[in-house]
Formats: sequence, C-alpha cells, structure tokens
Amino acid sequence: MRSQETHDLRVLWDARSIAVIGATDRPRALGRLPVEFLLRYGYGGRIVPVNPKGGTVCGLPAATELTERVDLALVMVPAAAVVDVVRRCGRVGVPVAIIMSSGFVEAGDDGAALQRELVDTAREAGVCVVGPNCIGSVGFRTGQTATFSPLFGAADLPRVPGRVGFATQSGALGFGTVSLALERGIGLHSAVNTGNEAAVSTLDALEALAAEPEVDALLGYTETLADGAALRRLAATGKPLALLKAGSSDAGSKAAASHTGALATSDRVVDAAFRQLGIARARDIDELLDLGAAFSSPHLPRGPRVAVVTTSGGSGILAADAIETTGELTLATLDPATTSALNAIVPAFGATANPVDVTAAVMSDRELLRRALDVVVDDDGVDAVVTCFCVLTGDQVMDIVTAVGEAADRAGKPVFVARTGADFLAPEATEALRKAGLPAYPTPARAVRALAGRWRTARATAGTGASAPVPAAGTALVEAPPPSPGNPAPQRSDEPGLKALLADHGVAVPAGRLAHDPDDAVAAVAELGGHAVVKAVVPGLIHKSEAGGVVGGVTAETARNAYTKVARLGGAVLVEEMVTAEHSLEVLVGVAASPLGQVLTVALGGVLTEVLDDASSRLLPLSREDATEMVAELRGARLLAGYRGAPPLDTAALIDLITAVSEMTIGWPDGFELDLNPVLVLPRGVRVLDAAYIPATPQPDR
Amino acid sequence: MRSQETHDLRVLWDARSIAVIGATDRPRALGRLPVEFLLRYGYGGRIVPVNPKGGTVCGLPAATELTERVDLALVMVPAAAVVDVVRRCGRVGVPVAIIMSSGFVEAGDDGAALQRELVDTAREAGVCVVGPNCIGSVGFRTGQTATFSPLFGAADLPRVPGRVGFATQSGALGFGTVSLALERGIGLHSAVNTGNEAAVSTLDALEALAAEPEVDALLGYTETLADGAALRRLAATGKPLALLKAGSSDAGSKAAASHTGALATSDRVVDAAFRQLGIARARDIDELLDLGAAFSSPHLPRGPRVAVVTTSGGSGILAADAIETTGELTLATLDPATTSALNAIVPAFGATANPVDVTAAVMSDRELLRRALDVVVDDDGVDAVVTCFCVLTGDQVMDIVTAVGEAADRAGKPVFVARTGADFLAPEATEALRKAGLPAYPTPARAVRALAGRWRTARATAGTGASAPVPAAGTALVEAPPPSPGNPAPQRSDEPGLKALLADHGVAVPAGRLAHDPDDAVAAVAELGGHAVVKAVVPGLIHKSEAGGVVGGVTAETARNAYTKVARLGGAVLVEEMVTAEHSLEVLVGVAASPLGQVLTVALGGVLTEVLDDASSRLLPLSREDATEMVAELRGARLLAGYRGAPPLDTAALIDLITAVSEMTIGWPDGFELDLNPVLVLPRGVRVLDAAYIPATPQPDR
Repeated sequence: MRSQETHDLRVLWDARSIAVIGATDRPRALGRLPVEFLLRYGYGGRIVPVNPKGGTVCGLPAATELTERVDLALVMVPAAAVVDVVRRCGRVGVPVAIIMSSGFVEAGDDGAALQRELVDTAREAGVCVVGPNCIGSVGFRTGQTATFSPLFGAADLPRVPGRVGFATQSGALGFGTVSLALERGIGLHSAVNTGNEAAVSTLDALEALAAEPEVDALLGYTETLADGAALRRLAATGKPLALLKAGSSDAGSKAAASHTGALATSDRVVDAAFRQLGIARARDIDELLDLGAAFSSPHLPRGPRVAVVTTSGGSGILAADAIETTGELTLATLDPATTSALNAIVPAFGATANPVDVTAAVMSDRELLRRALDVVVDDDGVDAVVTCFCVLTGDQVMDIVTAVGEAADRAGKPVFVARTGADFLAPEATEALRKAGLPAYPTPARAVRALAGRWRTARATAGTGASAPVPAAGTALVEAPPPSPGNPAPQRSDEPGLKALLADHGVAVPAGRLAHDPDDAVAAVAELGGHAVVKAVVPGLIHKSEAGGVVGGVTAETARNAYTKVARLGGAVLVEEMVTAEHSLEVLVGVAASPLGQVLTVALGGVLTEVLDDASSRLLPLSREDATEMVAELRGARLLAGYRGAPPLDTAALIDLITAVSEMTIGWPDGFELDLNPVLVLPRGVRVLDAAYIPATPQPDR
Repeated sequence: MRSQETHDLRVLWDARSIAVIGATDRPRALGRLPVEFLLRYGYGGRIVPVNPKGGTVCGLPAATELTERVDLALVMVPAAAVVDVVRRCGRVGVPVAIIMSSGFVEAGDDGAALQRELVDTAREAGVCVVGPNCIGSVGFRTGQTATFSPLFGAADLPRVPGRVGFATQSGALGFGTVSLALERGIGLHSAVNTGNEAAVSTLDALEALAAEPEVDALLGYTETLADGAALRRLAATGKPLALLKAGSSDAGSKAAASHTGALATSDRVVDAAFRQLGIARARDIDELLDLGAAFSSPHLPRGPRVAVVTTSGGSGILAADAIETTGELTLATLDPATTSALNAIVPAFGATANPVDVTAAVMSDRELLRRALDVVVDDDGVDAVVTCFCVLTGDQVMDIVTAVGEAADRAGKPVFVARTGADFLAPEATEALRKAGLPAYPTPARAVRALAGRWRTARATAGTGASAPVPAAGTALVEAPPPSPGNPAPQRSDEPGLKALLADHGVAVPAGRLAHDPDDAVAAVAELGGHAVVKAVVPGLIHKSEAGGVVGGVTAETARNAYTKVARLGGAVLVEEMVTAEHSLEVLVGVAASPLGQVLTVALGGVLTEVLDDASSRLLPLSREDATEMVAELRGARLLAGYRGAPPLDTAALIDLITAVSEMTIGWPDGFELDLNPVLVLPRGVRVLDAAYIPATPQPDR
C-alpha cells in the first residue's frame, strides 16, 4: 500500500463527512443502522444518506445521488450495483469507500470476477476501497460508528474510549471481540473491519492506526498474512502489536481458503517472524484481549525476570509453570537482601523464595502484601511482578489494588495482577484495577502469558535482542527499514561457483578446484594432501551421490579412475579436500520462499531432517542475535554443546555462517531456494560440504 | 486409602453433626466463620462450637471440651495444640477431623515433625485427618459450609447446587475457582480442600465424591500426583474427571516442592497416564471450569467427528484450527446429502462445507441457523457440533439458544456453543444456555478444547480406545482393576536369561546360545549359519561395546579369537545370529519407575535417543490399543511407514512387542528398570538385540 493511501485511511475513524449510499428509513433494515448509530453516538461530522427515492433517513434528508465530496462513503447497495457507485464516488472525489455489500469473492467465481472489476474500477477512479463484505469501522473517540454491527444497538453499551487500535478481517468475530473489550474496560481508539481485503488488508489498517498519535497499541485479527514488509514496518513503529492469525492449522488453512481465498502461510514461519519482529502472537480471542490489557500498563518490563508475589501457594505454582512454559520469561532469582527482608515480613508458613507466598494471613494483616511487594519491586534483579490473589472480598481487594498500584508506580515496573475470584466478590475491583493502570487477569497463567507478550513487544525498546534490520522504536511510521546493500543473484550457481561466493563471504568451504583431465586430478589430489573427494558438477544434477557422481577417500593412486568415473556423467569434475572429523554434526542451512518473504532455516541434518523436524526459521535479513536464538532453539543444540563426553562443537562458527548467508543473499531476487546441505559443524569451524541454488520460477499471474 | 476411610469422607459434605474446635464469638475472627456460615447457609445438622472458655458462638452455647461423638470435627486451634485435640476426637469417636491450622510441613523442619506426629496420633486414635493447613469443605446441597473461606461472606453468593464434585489441594485458589464456577452457573455438589494432604489426598477426596450417587462429574486441582492406582480406580468409575496438575514445569515443580513438599511427577508421565485412563487434563483454572461445563451436557459424543456451524466465518476458522490442535477430534466430513441440503439453506456467500457458515444473514432470517443445524446434527458422520455466533443481541440470542437446544436433544448429540460477545448484549443468555443443557464458551477454541475433554472422558463408554485393564464405566467405585496374573521378577536377569524370557512371551530375539570354550564357539557360529556376533555376559556390565565385549561379523575362522577376546572380561560368552537388514529402524523399548507406577516408554533409538526426544509413554499394564497409539505418537512413525521409497517396517510386530513386555512384567516388584535397546524393527518382525534389567534399589524410609 502506498503511504498516501495509508494516510487516507484516517477517515475510517475520523471523517468530517460520511455518505451512506443505500441508506433507508425502514426500521431494522441494515441500511438504516449506520445513520441511526452515527446519530446515537454523537458523531459530530456531516451525514449524507443517499437513496434513489430521496425522502429522509432517521430524520435526515436523503440525496437521490451522491453529488458532493465526502471524506468517507459507506456503500450498502446490492453487489451488482457497487461498481457503478464506486465510479460515482471517484467522480465527486470521495477518497475512501467502505464496501459493505456481500456477493464478491466469498460467493464463488462470479463474485470473484465482480471483485476484480471492483478493484480495477476503484483504482481508475482513485477511490481506496475497504472490504467488500465487511461491516464497517468505528472511532470511539469521535463517535464515528460507521457500521451496521448490532453491537451498537445494545441498550447499555459501555463507553471506554482509549488508545488501542484494532483491525479485524472478520466482521462478526471482530465486533464480538470489541464487545468483550468494552466489557473488560479495555480502552479502544477504533475498530476497523477489512472483510474480503480486496485492496486494504488488516496490516494496512494497522499501519494507518499506528500513524495516529492517539494510538499507543495495536491489536489485529487476520486470516491472511502475506506481507512481511508491512509486518516489519509495523514492528518498526515501536508501538506494541498483538496479532491473532487464524487458519494456523492445516484444517484451519483449508477453511481460510474457502472463506476468503486466503493465502495460507505455514505456522512455523508466522511464529518465527513474530518472534523476530517483536510481535506478540495471540492464540485465541481471550489472549488477544489479554494482550490489549497488557499494553495498557504504563510501565514496560526492562528484562525477562519475573517475581511472583501471591497470597495463595497454588497460584504461585501455576504462575511459575506458566513462566517456564513461555520460554521468554524467567523466574527471577531474588537478591539475598530481598529474601532476608521478606523473612521478616512473611509468616513462617509462607515462602520467601520466588514465588513469594505471603499466605492467606493477608486477610488479617491488610498491609502484608504491600510490605512484601515493596521489597520485591525494589530488587534490581526483578524486571516485572505478577501478583496473585483469590477470594478476597470488597475492601480487602480495594486495599490490595491501591498497594499494588503504588508499588508499581514507585518502582516504575509493571505489576500484572491475577485475581482468581468472581466479580461478585468485589464488584468495584475491575474498574479500580483499570484506573490504577494494572493489567488484571482471572488466572496466573493468563497474566504471565500477557506479560510475556508485553516483554516481547518491549524488547526492541529495552535495547536487547532486537533484530538488526528493525530501526529503533519511535521511528516514523511507513518509513521502510534502511535499504539493503542489494547483492545481485549469484552469477555462477553451480557448486564451485556457490562455494566461491560463500568463501568470499568468509564461509569455510573445503579446499579444492576443478580438474581438467585424469592427470590433473592426480595433481589436484596431491595438492590437497593426498586424500580427497571427487565430485561431478553437472547442471541440474542435485542428487549427485545416487547418480554415482561422488567418490570419497580418493588417493593419488585412485584419482585417475575416480576422475574417469565421475566425468562420465558429462559435466566438470571437482576435486576437494576430504573433510573428516572424529566429532562433528551435520546440519542443513537453507533459504526458501514464503508468503512473508525469504526465510532462512537451520535444521538438524542427515537423511532424517524432515522426520526429526528439528528446525528453526527466521525471515531474511536476520541479525546475529537472531542466528544465535535460532541455534539455541534446536533440540540438537545439546549435541553442539558437547554431548556425552564429546567435545563441544563450534556453535559460533555456525552462527557466523547463518549470518553470512543472510548478508550474502540480500537483494537476490525473491523466490529462490538455497540449500547448504550438509554443513559439517566441527570442534573448530564449519565446512559447507555441498551447496545448491534454485532460482525462482516465474509464476503465472494469480 | 482403605475403602472404609473413603466411605468416611462423605461427612465432608454430608455430616449430621459438626464440632468447631477453636470456635470464638469474636467478630471477623477465623474461628467464628464456619459457625456463622453453617447457620447462614441453612445447614440442617447439629453444630457444636468448642471453646475452653465456654460462652456462646453466634448464639450457640460453646462446650469447653468435646465430650460427644460428632460426624466431623473442624480443628482451628494453634498447631501446637492440634495433636491433643485429635487424640480427644479419637476418644469420643469422631471419625473425621479437618485440621485447618497452619504451622506444619509448610513451616519448615519443626512443622514437618509436628505433621508426622499428627499423622501417627490420628492413626492410633482412629481419626481420619484432612489437611492440615486447609480451609475446609462445603456441601452445596446440604448447606454444609464447613469452612472459613471468605467466599461465603460475600453478600450475594449465587446458589447453584449441582452434580459436579470438586477437590482441591490449594485452599485459596480452590475457593477462588469455586467462586468462578458459581458465577458461570456450573452446578457444584461439593468442594473439598485437602491442604497439606498428610493423610487424605485430592484423589482420595475425588474417590469418595465419585461414590456419591448425586455426583455425576469430577474436577480436581492437585500439586501432588503419586497414586496411579487411585487414578485407575477413578477412571474406572466411568464418571468424567478433569484434573489440573500444578507444578508441571521444572520451575513449577520446584515451587511445589517448597510449598507442600510435593513429589514432582514428570509432565510426560502425567500426560500419558491421563490420555491412557481417559482423564481430561486442564492446563489452567479457566480450562478446568470449561471442562466442568462440558461435563454438564446431557449428551455424550459417540466419536471424535465434529461439525462446526457458525454465523461468522472467522469463528469457523478458529474452531477448525482448534480441532486440528487437539489431536483428539477431527473435522467431520459431511455426507453429500447434508451438503446438498445445506446448499438450499445457506446463502450463496456462506459456506456449506465443514465449517458451515450461515453468515450474518441470521440477523434477518432467525430460523436460518435452526434449519442448518437440524440438517447437520442428523448427519451420521457427525458425532458432535460446535456452533458459533458473536454479537447477536437479546431476542436473537434467545431464539438461537432454543433452536440449538432442541436440535441437540432431538439428535441426542452434544452441541457446544461459542458465543463471542459480551454479557451486556444478551444478559439472559448465560442462564438460558445453562437451562437448555448447552455448554457455552466465550471463544470457539475453548468450546473445542472442552469438547475434546468430554470426548476423551467418554471414549471408554463409547466402546473405543479404552485401556484394557480399566473396567467398563459404571463399575462400583473403589473396586480395583481385576488382579493381574502376577509374574515373579525374572529369575535370570542377565542377557540370555532375559532373552529366553522374552522368547517365552513370543518376542523375537536373535538365535544363539552360550559357548563354553573356543571350539564350542566355532560350532555355535556354524550352527548359526557361519555369521554371528559374540558378546560378553558379565553381571553389571551394561556398556558392553565400550568394554570390548561385543565382536560382530564373526565367522567360523574368527570365532576362536572372538571367544578369547570376549571371555577375557571374565563372564560367559554368548554367540548370536548376526541380524542385518538393508532397511530397519532402531528403537528403544524400556520400563522405568515413576511416581504413578511403572511406565513403559518407546522411543526412536540410536545414540541420539535423548536428544531426539521422540518418545511416548504409558502406565503399565497397557492394552494393545495403547501400544498402537504410542507408536503412532512418535514423529518417527513416518520412518516405520516406509520413508522416501524404503519399504514399510513391521509396525504390528513393534506393537506386539510393547504389549508382550507389558504382560511379561505384570507383577514384577515395582521400581525396576528394563531396557530393550536397541530393538531392530525390520520389514518383517522385530529383533531385540540387547536387553538389561535393573531391579529396584531399596529406598530408605522417607
């Protein structure tokens, strides 16, 4: 999406004028609802109902045709009439139209053709179309309820305008989520539904939201995730982002395909990209809202070390379990001074190690939790606190909320609250927690997972572990990452050519050279110390060994025969140093295309690579920190560390190799595959034993 | 626990008389609360407050000492006085005492000693003690609030007596969970807190609850799980059981140890045992309650095939994702007749494949969902339905609830509801759903996970996949599984002895025999076809190869030398058929002790076994179905199926082997280890190449 268009999308929540094309005064008709809602929620701009028959809608005079420029048009006419309406919008200068009508790609082949026509027409007419098949957008600060969602017909809709921007591909599920956010007191700035995403995606809407000074955090629900560059730009804004990507399973992807023609991306790539870019991944609607609440904390974790302070031992154990499970947080080790101070505070039947359990004694000693918390938040080894309590009631809860809020503000550290108790025990608690800026959850595990998401989205800001290509937080939106150096595709993509290129990038490959005839092969073997491997170099021959194209253990005596055998395959003949080692590990380092861009994967190698399924991936380009994390994520990392008395292998060299491959391939035309397999990791260094490059095959237009 | 004691525990929720020892009239004192609560909630039995100073408590005269038999004593005196009180209880014939006092094992070494004294005294006095360090128990049908939990001080406690029994090791967290259950309208029969579990565990309490005719389903929270036999007995009752086991992670286990001295069990064993026994595993409090709601459905799934019917495409995708993730449910394939009927019902822009999306058109056509559901529930290929809707309001929701409830009842199939919308949209919905017997959840994934738990706990009843040793559902409680044949421990536990034993149980081992001298070795090799392996048989020598105790590829010519070399290690000499195969897979089949009993593990073998971490476990004894599942759970199952053009290997023979090992080891004294490693899986048959047995080492008393 062009940045001009991103700018245009502001009108989805802050338009000065809105036309509702297809408006009607008929009670309960969908075409009446946006007008009714805009009036009810105090929208301050101009509303222009359009109905060929004229008349009035909710007391407003209806135009028979749109004849004036408005900031935003809501299009609610039958599918067959939409293209004409969009053309008309273009003629009078409407920059953005929300196409609410159904009957496009979701309705089969004819609908798909209609959707293509809609996109083409909109482009020609200069209209940015949102949808089709969507239910509109809402600005909670402006009262701009440009939607027919029945949510806004509810009798007592809580009004909690806030600073969280929300974009959703699904309308019904999205506004259901909005209703739950309002119920939980999560302050929303806006909600945008993108429907079929013919031109504007969830990520586009989120980019526009991120540009708003009044938006501090972003939540999104999407079924289609195919724009790695947009993800990077979003991450680069420094505003915390949580995404729920539906269609994560095979079965789900199938449903996604039939629902919106969504392009499935593999779950591993999504996971890797989110981790790499500092995007929190929600696995369910609950968790998306849990993250929204986490983003409302005024304090950021400066590290992953979490202290748990609880009035219930059980809650402490559940919190500790969850911390371990995240893989991104750690249970803080308290300073001996902290423990010693806690020993004077916590009853003998409590616990002063982390998790700290002040016990139900808090019922009779209301300041107990405050005293313990005050000590814990001041520990320099504690980056964040999760505090848990259960069935406390009324005043007891309010006292705790005050104490917790004050401790968090004084220390400037986030304190997340797990209150495992019904609302009826302390009806004022939810509101009090919200006012105190304390994210609150019904279970310790949910508090911990939300904190893990907050930490992941804060890491770049905290200055640790951010991916190199992502600019620091606070960089202006829509500014792309700094342009890459941009290497051309490899000129020579045969094995010797690739190995030469790798060597240019500081990667160790076996010594060797092409041999021109049997005698030259004898000479080459001698140059390599009398012990070599002889390999065929034949364009397109990937499985050399099976074809008899590799002869190992060649000496000067056998070199002539080996040359003759391998040369029979019709290509050049490579003579290489024979790399042998008592201790080594075979890995694969490869690059392949994905819907989010080129992805580098490192995996435990050998013939069982796919069965072992011990792999870690990242989007390219990646940083050395990314490469370090990738290697650590392998189960096989234990083998690198020196397994069962074997010497440790050169993990640093493997990390160097991964980083070098990332740098080397920057700028190569997208869609290629590169396979370094096997790569031998040795006690000192690595050797790339084989390398293959497959350029992108041109794709027919979709 | 003896069955007599289990019987005694009924008084935890249904006692005719209760003494409160340490009762006081002082306002807000803990010692006043049980008396106050018993009166407030209409407990119909006799209440005997006991206070050395006499006087009254809540208007009831207090005895200065307990002089009469009561069904249940609540002990609320300081820790140091508890032992005397328990002695007194024994003297007057009190069968069960809840020790609420703190200051026992959770308070360090002195407390631990005091707890041991308490247990010994109670045993001598014939009193069954619950706790110490607990907050009591509640019978919701009897109004027996024998607890000081502040929950029962809440102003407007919802009263939802029901048929779900709940036992919890943690008091505060447990009664917090109870409050959430009441809020959600989950009908509880009772709640029992077991605290330090000096004598009565969560599982003991659950067994007693399972014996109640008025209890239909069981929920438990535990930090200590060390009684595999009790788990089996619970599973055998046929009443659905969900357990939340805290302390699942390493960090969590550490916290568990410091909190209650809990014995950690490894997460994999717990997972395996639950799956094997048909126990639903909750991973969080939310999920435990979700399962409680699932158990309230009057209809049981008869299979794993789920249809999704939704008004929102997004919800359908999330449901499909979740079905895939459970690994225990499948997305049903609808009958062509069903799809064809749906084509006439669902709008063109909806979807008639599973997930079925009737779209938001349900807003204008209120009977649309009913018509679609009616067709789907009647499909014989559908065992259960998850139906999803979002922001529908008021009457719309009530119409849907009626339609869904009627469809479920007519077809006799469970329909779980995911309503992703705030309560304020349809305030009557929760109650209406509950009355219609429809389990309801805020997100599609939670509905699916709860349904998966319902299916797991119903499988035994459905007659598929139940573990052989578990009697059919409905068997009387506390009756143990049928006694096992009971083999003695192996007489000869050296390699030839174990292999002979395996052969007796139909397991294929290499042909072979002991050789008595070099000449005999030559003869033996000849008998085996002239190609053999020669192995040392030395007691205690496990790593034979490293010690030079294995010589492979031995022929008649080399047999004499091989014998001499191996015999040098000082033991007997085994000559065995050399098993070679072009295609084969090495696996490990082993048995080891766990806190839940002996556990059999099958794992991908070779030197990397621990790094690959590709293993599946089950409690012994196990059924052939269990063994089949175990093999299917391995990632390496792909290798058995014939990987990359290799012939398939004999999976059935591997399953036979696992089943045979289970049968062979029934009755062996607990605590042993048995290692069959490697086991070679061949295209036809398996061969156990090596076998070792390590008997239990006697443990010092804990």
